[in-house]
Amino acid sequence: MLPPGWDALGKDSFASDHFEAVLDGREAYKPEEITYFSGFRPPPGFLKTLPNLKAMFSLGAGVDGFLRDPELPRLPLTRFVDPTLMHEMAQYVVMHVLIAHRGQRFFDAAQKESTWRQRMLARPSRDTRIGILGLGDIGGTIATSLLPFDFQLSGWSRSRKAIPGVKSFAGDSELPQFLSQCDYLVCVLPLTDDTRGIIDAKLLARLPQGAWVINVARGAHLIEEDLIAALDSGHLAGAVLDVFQAEPLPDDSPIWRHPKITATPHIAGITDAQAAFAYVADCVKRCENGLPLENVVDLVKGY
Amino acid sequence: MLPPGWDALGKDSFASDHFEAVLDGREAYKPEEITYFSGFRPPPGFLKTLPNLKAMFSLGAGVDGFLRDPELPRLPLTRFVDPTLMHEMAQYVVMHVLIAHRGQRFFDAAQKESTWRQRMLARPSRDTRIGILGLGDIGGTIATSLLPFDFQLSGWSRSRKAIPGVKSFAGDSELPQFLSQCDYLVCVLPLTDDTRGIIDAKLLARLPQGAWVINVARGAHLIEEDLIAALDSGHLAGAVLDVFQAEPLPDDSPIWRHPKITATPHIAGITDAQAAFAYVADCVKRCENGLPLENVVDLVKGY
Repeated sequence: MLPPGWDALGKDSFASDHFEAVLDGREAYKPEEITYFSGFRPPPGFLKTLPNLKAMFSLGAGVDGFLRDPELPRLPLTRFVDPTLMHEMAQYVVMHVLIAHRGQRFFDAAQKESTWRQRMLARPSRDTRIGILGLGDIGGTIATSLLPFDFQLSGWSRSRKAIPGVKSFAGDSELPQFLSQCDYLVCVLPLTDDTRGIIDAKLLARLPQGAWVINVARGAHLIEEDLIAALDSGHLAGAVLDVFQAEPLPDDSPIWRHPKITATPHIAGITDAQAAFAYVADCVKRCENGLPLENVVDLVKGY
Repeated sequence: MLPPGWDALGKDSFASDHFEAVLDGREAYKPEEITYFSGFRPPPGFLKTLPNLKAMFSLGAGVDGFLRDPELPRLPLTRFVDPTLMHEMAQYVVMHVLIAHRGQRFFDAAQKESTWRQRMLARPSRDTRIGILGLGDIGGTIATSLLPFDFQLSGWSRSRKAIPGVKSFAGDSELPQFLSQCDYLVCVLPLTDDTRGIIDAKLLARLPQGAWVINVARGAHLIEEDLIAALDSGHLAGAVLDVFQAEPLPDDSPIWRHPKITATPHIAGITDAQAAFAYVADCVKRCENGLPLENVVDLVKGY
């Protein structure tokens, strides 16, 4: 059932093996027969070998896996706007904000010692400010999922957004002001030339003392060395990382063992297989029937 | 600033010491001068010694600390409906549901071993059913806080409720049906003669295989021995307990060390001092001005 070229669904080894078999020549395919491509990170240069390709459908919410290809065909490229994935990302972020806000790690440690150790919240919810860096589909879903909990919410994006209960900061000029009021900074930016390495020492210095950084976007947004320095200096209270400069994160990375970092293996939002098949089927149908594709990426902006 | 008889604010040692000083006679007070009482758990028999008492204001959301007194004066008793506390309870429940649903303990263990170990969700969010036992102010807030995450939500209460997106079960006759569809059972019932010990072996047996129990109400709702048996038999997957038959939970309790139990020291919802002062001031003002009190407890129903 899988069209050639599917490395789809990440955790689905059948699809992965299939794609690898195509790429390394173990499985025969005729490049001229391939009219649609869907996947996460096609090897640079691969797509230009398909002469009759009509469109490309990213299976990820981000399309940096396509845009890294300097020879990417100038064809329609869609990104996958998957409600299931958006809910999962929101679950991940809300869970980790709450674990930090509520001091759950403190209570875990007390339980390990079989000791009744009460503690108030370090900061009332109403005085706790959460900022979403990247207020698109996913960022907006995260923000609205945080609404019921009495936090102060804001977001930053290139263009101003109108989400009730969420203060919108826009453009480079408002970034410092946004950062200065983030007790939790949640990164869900698309990865583009503008956002690569955006979370560096300079940005981190603008966060309030004791802030947390949560990165669920791409590892390349964050300069890991700068984050560790800001944690070690005491400027930041903690970080939650689901994405890394190198993935899988090597076993000898100091990130695994850093006492102020929670590290998870890129599982904040996992593409839902069922939803992915439906999305690709819909895209193909639209193309075949001459209907416009949805969520087509602006190749200049990069999202 | 504290009226005699305040054991208010639990974690506020000044208020507690003050109350104890009153009770054991170290601090003088004239019983006939006390017209209002506010606290969590006045010692049984104490309130009847106040001849001019006009009203009692519980500082907790539950009033079982008052109703346990067989000689409780037949005077208006209010419960504290505190939005801050409701948000905190919702945070606690959402956090623990998400920790279990997302397998965060698995990822914590993988991090401890510096190992990249990916895993899908054990069950899609849309197939995950969360049931709130007690769908009053707090239960309703918990349910609506869970709404953004794509779970199936339901609640059980004595009378039927209408909360959009939350299926309402009502009365004893619908309890078995409710329980049979709870992958997570969250107890926020008031403690009354009807609900004492309600979570016993019989109730637990009605939950689906692999269910979780989260108790943030009162320890006396749950037969701890029955819970441990259901965990050990493999019928239940886990439990999160914030309240216990004996508090503080003794250091030698097996609950602390049970691998399937997360135990926290009654911190799910902490009465907000600022909100508590405002509530008591408002209650006193209403009484003095002949206005009706809000959230007066039905002493027969017990909430």
